[in-house]
Amino acid sequence: MRLSQFHLVTTREVPSDASIISHKLMLCTGMIRKLASGVYSWGPLGLRVLHKVENIVREEMNRSGAIEMLMPTIQPKELWEESGRWQKFGPQLLKIKDCKQQSFCYGPTAEEVVTDYVRQELSSYKQLPVNFYQIQTKFRDEIRPRFGVMRAREFLMKDAYSFHLSQESLSTTYQAMYEVYNRIFKRLGLRCRAVQADNGAIGGQHSHEFHVLADSGEDVIAFSDQSKYAANIEKAEALAPNTTRPQPTEPLRRLETPGKKTIEEVSDFLKIPRAQCVKTLLVHGKKGLVALCLRGDHELNETKACKLTELPNQITLASDSDILTATGTQAGFIGPVGLPASIPVFVDHSAAVLADFICGANTDHNHYSGANWGRDAHFERIEDLRLIVAGDLSPDGQGQLRIARGIEMGHIFQLGNTYAKAMRVSVLDEQGKKQVPLMGCYGLGISRIVAAAIEQSHDQAGIIWPEAMAPWRVAICMINPKRHPDITAAAESLYQELSAHGIETVLDDRGHRSGTMFADMELIGIPHRVVISQRNLDTGTIEYRARKAKENKIIKREELFLLLKENGRDNGHFLEN
Amino acid sequence: MRLSQFHLVTTREVPSDASIISHKLMLCTGMIRKLASGVYSWGPLGLRVLHKVENIVREEMNRSGAIEMLMPTIQPKELWEESGRWQKFGPQLLKIKDCKQQSFCYGPTAEEVVTDYVRQELSSYKQLPVNFYQIQTKFRDEIRPRFGVMRAREFLMKDAYSFHLSQESLSTTYQAMYEVYNRIFKRLGLRCRAVQADNGAIGGQHSHEFHVLADSGEDVIAFSDQSKYAANIEKAEALAPNTTRPQPTEPLRRLETPGKKTIEEVSDFLKIPRAQCVKTLLVHGKKGLVALCLRGDHELNETKACKLTELPNQITLASDSDILTATGTQAGFIGPVGLPASIPVFVDHSAAVLADFICGANTDHNHYSGANWGRDAHFERIEDLRLIVAGDLSPDGQGQLRIARGIEMGHIFQLGNTYAKAMRVSVLDEQGKKQVPLMGCYGLGISRIVAAAIEQSHDQAGIIWPEAMAPWRVAICMINPKRHPDITAAAESLYQELSAHGIETVLDDRGHRSGTMFADMELIGIPHRVVISQRNLDTGTIEYRARKAKENKIIKREELFLLLKENGRDNGHFLEN
Repeated sequence: MRLSQFHLVTTREVPSDASIISHKLMLCTGMIRKLASGVYSWGPLGLRVLHKVENIVREEMNRSGAIEMLMPTIQPKELWEESGRWQKFGPQLLKIKDCKQQSFCYGPTAEEVVTDYVRQELSSYKQLPVNFYQIQTKFRDEIRPRFGVMRAREFLMKDAYSFHLSQESLSTTYQAMYEVYNRIFKRLGLRCRAVQADNGAIGGQHSHEFHVLADSGEDVIAFSDQSKYAANIEKAEALAPNTTRPQPTEPLRRLETPGKKTIEEVSDFLKIPRAQCVKTLLVHGKKGLVALCLRGDHELNETKACKLTELPNQITLASDSDILTATGTQAGFIGPVGLPASIPVFVDHSAAVLADFICGANTDHNHYSGANWGRDAHFERIEDLRLIVAGDLSPDGQGQLRIARGIEMGHIFQLGNTYAKAMRVSVLDEQGKKQVPLMGCYGLGISRIVAAAIEQSHDQAGIIWPEAMAPWRVAICMINPKRHPDITAAAESLYQELSAHGIETVLDDRGHRSGTMFADMELIGIPHRVVISQRNLDTGTIEYRARKAKENKIIKREELFLLLKENGRDNGHFLEN
Repeated sequence: MRLSQFHLVTTREVPSDASIISHKLMLCTGMIRKLASGVYSWGPLGLRVLHKVENIVREEMNRSGAIEMLMPTIQPKELWEESGRWQKFGPQLLKIKDCKQQSFCYGPTAEEVVTDYVRQELSSYKQLPVNFYQIQTKFRDEIRPRFGVMRAREFLMKDAYSFHLSQESLSTTYQAMYEVYNRIFKRLGLRCRAVQADNGAIGGQHSHEFHVLADSGEDVIAFSDQSKYAANIEKAEALAPNTTRPQPTEPLRRLETPGKKTIEEVSDFLKIPRAQCVKTLLVHGKKGLVALCLRGDHELNETKACKLTELPNQITLASDSDILTATGTQAGFIGPVGLPASIPVFVDHSAAVLADFICGANTDHNHYSGANWGRDAHFERIEDLRLIVAGDLSPDGQGQLRIARGIEMGHIFQLGNTYAKAMRVSVLDEQGKKQVPLMGCYGLGISRIVAAAIEQSHDQAGIIWPEAMAPWRVAICMINPKRHPDITAAAESLYQELSAHGIETVLDDRGHRSGTMFADMELIGIPHRVVISQRNLDTGTIEYRARKAKENKIIKREELFLLLKENGRDNGHFLEN
């Protein structure tokens, strides 16, 4: 593409309503323009990137054997009533009345429509398993749309729906989709993690979320540095330490700790590491108060605590007065030693292997040192109660856990027969018996991926596109072409040769000054920049700079091609079929 | 594609609600499924065809220098109020309220949105001319959607919008789009005609419609058999005959024609050709009645008659009592000879060159024979008043006119500055002065093209796809592969080789009987069918049949490749870039 024939409008003035970097950079580069709240036009530059994502997703879905179709954006109310979601879906469902006062919605997802499609299309086990997908515009009427296309109301999504006669078949396709998603992100050049997830509103048994890692992500995930293990931090299991509890070496001793209520205050006051303290939380159990003991440097994971049979579905901390009533002691001085027998104690694995620890003495302004389980304090059970921390061992036994923020890009579900049952779908099995098929669904936010890539990869100068997502892989800038006509010829020749090799290249022939050209090419994140100037021509070389690099390199023309080939291979451009 | 891995469900039971052949065939092949009135899902087979059309349109638009972008489907009311179309567009505009009670519509077209886009994007003459396009879903809330995707409510459209600082520049882009459309239809393999058109509701000065020719078309168009001339039959000019009027040879004679009022009755009764009669229509002029004289075998073109300064914008025929009052004669016996002088006579070119003609005698149950202009009858002016008929000379002097029915696929307009002015767009010209840009718009119905192609090309057995639109170009059918394992091997090898040559091929490995296979491949319109059977294997040949052909051919493997290459070239698969 010759840039003079394209439409590129850039600005350095960051629009005031953009709060995250991808939103800012997409506006500054003209990738998107706001039409209404949460509704954006894709400018020519943005659409080039969107199409690249769309094409990779389509290629990988096709490769997996999924079959593309296209469902309407406008869906009739009747189907949503069959599934029961016309009411249940909530305010995000954009409801519409047509000129005959018939009710429709703008599809936020397509479980109903695809289930209606298959009940007309599928009749025999011979047609199963089958996995239909589409790449189609969706609308969710978010009350507070924000972050540009990251959380827009109108957005582009790939949604797939598979149908099966056995759980085994559903599991196989589910696993295949899991692999497809990983492959898509690998080809896109994005660091991504699949994490086990709760199913939320859609229902069903198994699901994974796919997160692109970025500091601005809203979700916190834990993942192994050596394996595929990843989980939402709420769900990540903390392994029991592989050490056993040492024998007590100190006597139990009561210490005055006037006004020192928190672990921080006590450990600072006593000059004892936090990890040598035990934190005791009193919460409301199904029958009276319950004590949860954690190591002083650990935090309670409420999601895990809820799973204790003695606790209700939601954790409520005991109030100061509850604590005073139950123990006769102020909050801040509670501990497992000498706690009333009516309060059962559950100890986290890491707290359970401590010996000679510090804990509250159940007496105002007093703590114990040299406390020991068994000898001084008793507990009901040892449980996994804490949030994991970076450096914890990975639960799969491979590597240590790291913690990162992520942006959810996709979600895959095993839905079971919920929709098929509600909408009366059946197919004949090999015995000629009617069976309700099982269903899986697999969503992926195409437009959101574009924004997430920017969140993951940018610097002060602008976007740093991964090779496979860049609007063009190479930018050619000409210095003073008017004064040196041979520069235009050299740039043209390189442009033609790169294009002939199928390497998407943009030739900056707008006649701007070099500063403006360089700044634009950096802002829009072109991975490889080549400068053609009189100096290079004289020496028969090319001035090259990778977007990620800090400095220029002077290279030979052949080296450029080698380098582009090498980079393309790394990023999936030449992935074998 | 191996058909066992695809989703193909065909039926011969024609759905009762489908009235035109494309609708029937699209349902029978599973190309589309109805979701709601005028709202269709595209099945996998249909989507393959839709994508082919979309890709050719995109390639040709890009080649022309147009720049792709993507505007939202949901558009805010405010923009439509700026243009004045929120009210004016009528009931086809699907209006929507979001959860905050803000008003939007589902875009039926995007003049407002693109004009809003350019007023943010364009500031200088240096950015013009520019032609933005998108391929995006549209919605028009037709009261009676019908004919499947031919007149659906939700449909896929390519819409382009160009901006200019001079009429000359607008004309250049307009002409370029005219050529692009012709090229698109040529590549698609469709017979298409561009016709001059009235602008309808959108406004502006120049416009052309593009019609795919098909007997089921709703529009009637006239086109030259030797040139590019084509026009809606209402607008097609009838050339004056290149003969002069012969001298009178007969005397004026009054004949009794009891009860013979129409030209048909009179010419049959007198045994005189209709073309030798003159038909006289009395219509209401701006001041009293006016007579319009046509050759007996011609019909009045009201659109042309309206352009006479003596006539109002709409033609009203005089009633029987009007005629009786004005002439003292019953309707059916009126003629130019001896008509009251208060009724001016306008004669069509073809009627004006008649001599010795038959006409009404302005006396009940009487006609004249041997009537002659000048000697017997006088007229005000000679005008072009008639509808053209097949065989008329083309107005551009090249060839004769043919008449065909057409289906409107696209429409290109020179809009002028209507939208830019209403929405206050301006750019600075070379002198630094603010100018309101001129605008062109260029629509093309992508989903409608698929249906129109079927209307143009089908037979009793099903669809006959043009090469470039076919879901696959070649179908390979295996006869008895289970009994002869070498058949599977031969079919696989041919399948692999064709695929390696980039020829899209479907291998029918479903294990159906040959009758079912052949009927399916004919129904879905695959241009080339190859049968692999034991007999062929023994003789080292291939049984081949073109979809359009009536008989099989036994050919060599090499011949197949040559033939496919040749056919691909004809249909634009290998068009030079």
